[in-house]
Amino acid sequence: MKSNTVAELLKKDAKSQDIEIKGWVRTFRANRFIALNDGSTLQNIQCVVDFEKTDEAILKRITTGAAVHIKGQLIESQGKGQNVEIAVLSINILGDSDPETYPIQPKKHSFEFLRENAHLRTRTNTFSAVMRLRSSLSFAIHKYFNENGFYYMHTPIITGSDAEGAGEMFRVSNLDAKNPPLNEDGSVNFKEDFFGKETNLTVSGQLEAETFAMSLGKVYTFGPTFRAENSNTSRHLAEFWMIEPEVAFMDLAGNMDLAEDFMKSVLKYVLDNNREDLEFLEQRLLDEEKTKPQAERSEMSLIEKINFVVDNNFKRVSYTEAIDILKNSKPNKKKQFNYIIEQWGADLQSEHERFLVEKHFKCPVILFDYPANIKAFYMRLNEDGKTVRAMDILFPGIGEMVGGSQREERLDVLKAKMKALDIDEEELWWYLDLRKYGTAVHSGFGLGFERLVMFATGMGNIRDVIPYPRTPQNAEF
Amino acid sequence: MKSNTVAELLKKDAKSQDIEIKGWVRTFRANRFIALNDGSTLQNIQCVVDFEKTDEAILKRITTGAAVHIKGQLIESQGKGQNVEIAVLSINILGDSDPETYPIQPKKHSFEFLRENAHLRTRTNTFSAVMRLRSSLSFAIHKYFNENGFYYMHTPIITGSDAEGAGEMFRVSNLDAKNPPLNEDGSVNFKEDFFGKETNLTVSGQLEAETFAMSLGKVYTFGPTFRAENSNTSRHLAEFWMIEPEVAFMDLAGNMDLAEDFMKSVLKYVLDNNREDLEFLEQRLLDEEKTKPQAERSEMSLIEKINFVVDNNFKRVSYTEAIDILKNSKPNKKKQFNYIIEQWGADLQSEHERFLVEKHFKCPVILFDYPANIKAFYMRLNEDGKTVRAMDILFPGIGEMVGGSQREERLDVLKAKMKALDIDEEELWWYLDLRKYGTAVHSGFGLGFERLVMFATGMGNIRDVIPYPRTPQNAEF
Repeated sequence: MKSNTVAELLKKDAKSQDIEIKGWVRTFRANRFIALNDGSTLQNIQCVVDFEKTDEAILKRITTGAAVHIKGQLIESQGKGQNVEIAVLSINILGDSDPETYPIQPKKHSFEFLRENAHLRTRTNTFSAVMRLRSSLSFAIHKYFNENGFYYMHTPIITGSDAEGAGEMFRVSNLDAKNPPLNEDGSVNFKEDFFGKETNLTVSGQLEAETFAMSLGKVYTFGPTFRAENSNTSRHLAEFWMIEPEVAFMDLAGNMDLAEDFMKSVLKYVLDNNREDLEFLEQRLLDEEKTKPQAERSEMSLIEKINFVVDNNFKRVSYTEAIDILKNSKPNKKKQFNYIIEQWGADLQSEHERFLVEKHFKCPVILFDYPANIKAFYMRLNEDGKTVRAMDILFPGIGEMVGGSQREERLDVLKAKMKALDIDEEELWWYLDLRKYGTAVHSGFGLGFERLVMFATGMGNIRDVIPYPRTPQNAEF
Repeated sequence: MKSNTVAELLKKDAKSQDIEIKGWVRTFRANRFIALNDGSTLQNIQCVVDFEKTDEAILKRITTGAAVHIKGQLIESQGKGQNVEIAVLSINILGDSDPETYPIQPKKHSFEFLRENAHLRTRTNTFSAVMRLRSSLSFAIHKYFNENGFYYMHTPIITGSDAEGAGEMFRVSNLDAKNPPLNEDGSVNFKEDFFGKETNLTVSGQLEAETFAMSLGKVYTFGPTFRAENSNTSRHLAEFWMIEPEVAFMDLAGNMDLAEDFMKSVLKYVLDNNREDLEFLEQRLLDEEKTKPQAERSEMSLIEKINFVVDNNFKRVSYTEAIDILKNSKPNKKKQFNYIIEQWGADLQSEHERFLVEKHFKCPVILFDYPANIKAFYMRLNEDGKTVRAMDILFPGIGEMVGGSQREERLDVLKAKMKALDIDEEELWWYLDLRKYGTAVHSGFGLGFERLVMFATGMGNIRDVIPYPRTPQNAEF
């Protein structure tokens, strides 16, 4: 007899079928009712033990966290809350779980405690739901791009370049950590290192993705990226996953269309496929927010927020318009912003972005055409000579979700920009080649995957939406 | 009018429709016929220019590699080799490509040359086909696991552990490379490093995947892994992608079933979805092999080989049986092997694996139940006390494709093994916890993704199946 999963059994009709199932005990009450879970669904299946016919030594070993193998009959449930249950005929303890020491007791644990026990936290409803949603979103992303003619590309993790410009990098080395070989001038001789030069962990796959876009047309990356920044916040990780599509012959308007369609599509996928987990997380968020003052609570529930994004157009606003709105806003005039917006050219802070999204427009906002000098070297300079075809997509509650741009496709303009920023042409010879041979308009964006998972799960700390977070002073597990 | 892709146009009926298309010139012959490619398919679309109505300055700029924007009519082709073609009404040069300097001329280039120009090599038929197949295999993998109830899990890339035991690791650090902070005893003080301890790039996500399997049931990883080994061969990369499923309540026999079903399913996917690219690569391989002596040529063509794997059962052979076969084999008796098999316990070399697969069984082979002392610490010890429930899957032409095992689920046995191998219990406290709380039989395997791509594309060098290979002395692009 093939083992079933809980998800399969809960969908079956109760026709007193013989079944067997393996899973972990969530709770055992009244020496009679086992709530059994195997990860296949948020739901437990109730297994009813006839304690009079069961060895007492076995009954004692049915504890929270124990792995058990149950044979029995699937029958119509006698109690409330489920349609079917299992009348247990035999139970075999596969692995005990000492109730005195098992960290995941059937009670509410703080997320901090569960982070310290991240190897066990997916044994809770919250984290199993989060990780199932993370998986589902990942699949939705691959599905979207596959159906839309994009090729998945694995850009390199170890890079010999430090010109990507997106932030501080981690060094990757094989040299003796204490006594590295030195050059005559006393500097470290990276020629003796594994790759024959200094190497780092990538901060973005964009530049390499551009090379494939300029031959294969539509490509995307979905891989880990790294920032060696000492940011101990609820929104930053040193290691996170990023999605970066890149498309030849697509301009900034097309880039906005793509990003909006993409975001809506993957969120719709989880609405359609992960209802149960979403409803659980929605309730969790409601319960959490009950402890907060009214003003800090969300106006919409989790599923309402997701539906809102799926159903509404993203508002497209130029940076220049946004500055006007902000300059004339109440918090700016009343000096409630930490950074007062005084003139065009100011870099927008999180407080400004949140004002635009949450107070002013009350919907996802695409800001575009930013001042050139606050954006990266590869962004397409507009005809005005002072703005670039950049875009940021801002989401309620999360802030920046996507950053993208049309790329500078003109060799002379790109070279001038690199020179002004002191970026070595020789290091990016291959990137410049794309502008020498068959250059064309092209665009793309980057989406921080964990930000998307935060939005879709309502989790407030980025460390709780990735299996094993890497942050300053923490690389446990 | 929306721009089309070449793939879309080639599927349309020629009804003199007005169309426009952007792409790159592959060739331009007789001042009349442009072969245009945009990456959406291996095929080019023929665009026929009326040179009498076209400015001569423009005609001169229609060179191999140039990006062009063509407007015209899709019509029935006058010539052979295609059903439809484009009668060009206007052509706009988006980006020139100087024929004097453009590296990718319309002629045969060596793979070595193209590796040096890896940023442009996907502009050739061979590499565009390889990378489309790589993308398609990736999707097939996600699709298979998604349809079979597995959750995708992103295991950490930066690890604080050096106990994974699969090979030499790269150090990840933020300390000053030349003058790192030192402890009083003169050793490097990694407490001052970013993560507060020494960290490395992962060699495997298995141990973390086990934590999720023991709560979510069925999970898999698909991510980059690293080996700091100085292997300059056609089969090794310092950075490569690996797929690692891990399943609770599954034993070694189930693991073999899963691996076989999985491999067949993803290969069937590309047979069904990438016919054109496969046929091109099949012909390429035939042409390449024509230059080789008869004995070195494949007995089957590329598509035949893939079909053979999809259609035939993998042969399951115990290590002990395999040793018997090898001991009595002709090359062993005639001392043609570099390593002569003398007794049970010998580690199998690539020459032995290839003999078993290519000469003896002539099909994919699953070897299992290896001697404990040549396998990793986490593998389940058999009742004989000397073998472990390990398996390797060997493929013709490639050798080891998959390595897996049932995991040691018994705390006492695992601890004894770790002690014997001097693996620190404290470092793997969380891994041991899985055996303390609700332990159960579980199994999984690892598949080197690039080996699979090599098999499916017939490419002979692993550097040619990944966008930007990382190997000793090479981290270009």
